[in-house]
Amino acid sequence: MTFASPLKGKEQDETAAFRPRFDSNGLIAAIAQDAETGDVLMLAWMNAEALQATIETGRATYWSRSRGELWRKGDTSGHIQEVVELYVDCDQDAILMKVRQTGAACHTGRKGCFYRRVDGQDKLTFQ
Amino acid sequence: MTFASPLKGKEQDETAAFRPRFDSNGLIAAIAQDAETGDVLMLAWMNAEALQATIETGRATYWSRSRGELWRKGDTSGHIQEVVELYVDCDQDAILMKVRQTGAACHTGRKGCFYRRVDGQDKLTFQ
Repeated sequence: MTFASPLKGKEQDETAAFRPRFDSNGLIAAIAQDAETGDVLMLAWMNAEALQATIETGRATYWSRSRGELWRKGDTSGHIQEVVELYVDCDQDAILMKVRQTGAACHTGRKGCFYRRVDGQDKLTFQ
Repeated sequence: MTFASPLKGKEQDETAAFRPRFDSNGLIAAIAQDAETGDVLMLAWMNAEALQATIETGRATYWSRSRGELWRKGDTSGHIQEVVELYVDCDQDAILMKVRQTGAACHTGRKGCFYRRVDGQDKLTFQ
């Protein structure tokens, strides 16, 4: 199973067909947002197989670039993400998932990955 | 001016120094989230120059991959993004900006880019 190919320009912006645009590595960026709080939890990557699995199972599934393997979130940690709704952006090269997060989204054990605020060119403040 | 280099593994997750990790094309993904509503508005890309400009000016500035040039959001459209807060994720390869959006974030004229919900493998529903 493959996805339909992207269209060009405005056609891609206005089509009612799902035509995800994967990059030259075959990946698309996926944002996970907490469906209840609206907090952005993490940004990770999907290949076509991961995207298809996410849609079919309702469980967020990514492609791990570091490990080079499919990564169904929570299979090891128990910290699963149930997909409540899934959106695609105008040119269909980014995915936004509203998820019900069990436990921590971040591998550091924190609820989300964006736990440091950038305060100037070289300083981070933990939140 | 350049940014400090990324550290490895846990050190990168826990450092209080800003050490953004750009990809092999010199880019980092940047999410813009409406500071008031929490809506995720768009995902775009920054190179080091764009990231630096964003921090220094408080105006979201991206790298346009299609045009191959720096793109200070709103310079043409008037639809500027004032950065209220800027965050970085655990391994520092993604940026989250909370922004005050003037007008439409999306080039289609819509408030945000994620205006279509994915309903199954090949169907989108406009919201």
